[in-house]
Amino acid sequence: MRTLEVDLGDRSYPIYIGGDLLKQAGAYFERHGLTKKSPVLIVTDKNVAPLHLHKVEASLQASGYRTVCHIVEAGEPSKSLAVFEQVMTTAIENGLDRKSSVVALGGGVVGDLAGFVAASYMRGVTFVQMPTTILAHDSSVGGKVAVNHRLAKNMIGAFYQPEMVLYDVNSLQTLPDREVRAGLSEMVKHGLIWDEPFANWCGDNCDKLLALDADALEYGLIQGCGIKAKVVATDEREQGLRAILNLGHTLGHAIEATGGYGEYLHGEAISIGMAAAALIAVHRGRDASLYEKTIQLLKGFGLPTAMPQHLKEEQLISAMMHDKKFTENKIVFVLPVRIGEVEIVSDVMLEEVRQVIAELKGEGQNV
Amino acid sequence: MRTLEVDLGDRSYPIYIGGDLLKQAGAYFERHGLTKKSPVLIVTDKNVAPLHLHKVEASLQASGYRTVCHIVEAGEPSKSLAVFEQVMTTAIENGLDRKSSVVALGGGVVGDLAGFVAASYMRGVTFVQMPTTILAHDSSVGGKVAVNHRLAKNMIGAFYQPEMVLYDVNSLQTLPDREVRAGLSEMVKHGLIWDEPFANWCGDNCDKLLALDADALEYGLIQGCGIKAKVVATDEREQGLRAILNLGHTLGHAIEATGGYGEYLHGEAISIGMAAAALIAVHRGRDASLYEKTIQLLKGFGLPTAMPQHLKEEQLISAMMHDKKFTENKIVFVLPVRIGEVEIVSDVMLEEVRQVIAELKGEGQNV
Repeated sequence: MRTLEVDLGDRSYPIYIGGDLLKQAGAYFERHGLTKKSPVLIVTDKNVAPLHLHKVEASLQASGYRTVCHIVEAGEPSKSLAVFEQVMTTAIENGLDRKSSVVALGGGVVGDLAGFVAASYMRGVTFVQMPTTILAHDSSVGGKVAVNHRLAKNMIGAFYQPEMVLYDVNSLQTLPDREVRAGLSEMVKHGLIWDEPFANWCGDNCDKLLALDADALEYGLIQGCGIKAKVVATDEREQGLRAILNLGHTLGHAIEATGGYGEYLHGEAISIGMAAAALIAVHRGRDASLYEKTIQLLKGFGLPTAMPQHLKEEQLISAMMHDKKFTENKIVFVLPVRIGEVEIVSDVMLEEVRQVIAELKGEGQNV
Repeated sequence: MRTLEVDLGDRSYPIYIGGDLLKQAGAYFERHGLTKKSPVLIVTDKNVAPLHLHKVEASLQASGYRTVCHIVEAGEPSKSLAVFEQVMTTAIENGLDRKSSVVALGGGVVGDLAGFVAASYMRGVTFVQMPTTILAHDSSVGGKVAVNHRLAKNMIGAFYQPEMVLYDVNSLQTLPDREVRAGLSEMVKHGLIWDEPFANWCGDNCDKLLALDADALEYGLIQGCGIKAKVVATDEREQGLRAILNLGHTLGHAIEATGGYGEYLHGEAISIGMAAAALIAVHRGRDASLYEKTIQLLKGFGLPTAMPQHLKEEQLISAMMHDKKFTENKIVFVLPVRIGEVEIVSDVMLEEVRQVIAELKGEGQNV
């Protein structure tokens, strides 16, 4: 078991990464001094519940905690205000009080939803994250929680830090192959923005990671979380540096939106977005090898790097314009400088983006 | 014009209290460096809009700000997740971005609703309070914002501090007499919990305050806000001391809930609650004069101090048990020690409350 401390002053918290941590949930609750007098609400989804819920419940109950569950549908539609209100109803009906905890057991959707419940219930109760996907190594660091509005993603939320993150790498063994690849996309991103040796390590170990080798996974997750934690510690409320975490997300979100949030997994969409960012950087004068290295790394994980033919350029551009990261009609992009370093560029022209979309369509489908 | 600084570290903010401040809104926005490139959302209600909205809009627009309005129904039902979502829709459709401000122009309901919108929109934007009631001198200090769940009040919210409070005492001149009295109830409460000379000043100046004398009002509001600010600065997230602000609220909330949130104004309900707290304290050994002085002060403002006959004891008790301020089945009460000082007592027995409810019913209706 490894521990990573996310350093945020009086909102600091540890991430515990290791095997079988879900079965020790009760002991970790005790270690953090969480009261047994107040009920614990576990929020999870229909995919995760049959696999892992009993472990968490059994462990908490064995330690003397009273648990309550709320199981939502798997997938993005559960990040709605309607589902948020249903979870609140469960919390109130089961007598959760100000000393209660809300546990997010699942991936990014459950984490975002349960996190916003924790942030808002009685103006904020204890939040515990138990990620069950690789992708969640990203969302479990940084305290960004939210639900979607029908007009835009993540519009309603908070910055709210957990009390702890329990990352059980055994829970990752049941992930479908496609989700493993997509989750590793964010891990690779952390290498690309901050740490060349780690990016190279990812490339050298893609087979082990894809095979869910426990040692490789623990190391990769600790490094990935660690990079994100460093960035977040510098800029908790996303005023500046934190934007580098959005490498690949500008176009990635547009791909997800245009595909109707279902056709592409988040990690797949940002993989294409990272390829696009590298290509824009090359057009602006970086060495062509930057793009080549980037797509080689992503392809090693079986991730897509070409733009799907059926996504219409105008729809992608329109979706980008609606993204909340654009203010004052200018387009901000995170662009690579070299492997392991990025810069935030605020003057990317629509024409440059159009050009790259066209070129990446020429690369053909390689999903 | 007087300024009170609420001291909360990097979340500190000023309260400006004086005449005609709404007409100077644009200048205050400029003084605080709020950008003119992002639209400003003004949330208000149907009662306040015809009286004051044009002043704020005209002033902001004259300074070069683009304004958007969302006008809700007056009253507690607007503090719902459904209305919250509607305000979010207005914000998104009008292109509010992360540098936008949300203005609460109105009383406590508008302040709570707009405050939670500001806290949650894109995970938090600038919040500006423009209270138009006396009662809001209480809610505009402390950063507690929330909407109601159908099962309980204020269950969904945040601690979120404004950028500034613009308190235009001229806007109070149009308040109905009953709301003036109810608003002054919280002002008296601030004297009762913290400051005997101020409590005495309130008693000596009740006629001036009821007549909305500008000087008396400015002084009373600055003192009331100042007391609340001191308490909140000590305990921003309501871990301890801040609970003293709940004097009269334990039974007061139960009276409001039992009366269906409409029969009694908040200030009226807590007036009865403060009388009850004083009577419990006397039963526990404080001098009988404590109760006499308390009700004399409240009656001076025309506030009720007897328990309405038609409110059923069992319903009041049941409503109290559901209040979020009770944990672990024990009843916490704020009780006066003397005028100007209170204590938090955690062992008040249901029997004591029943006894006092019965006695206060014996006092007869005096609303």
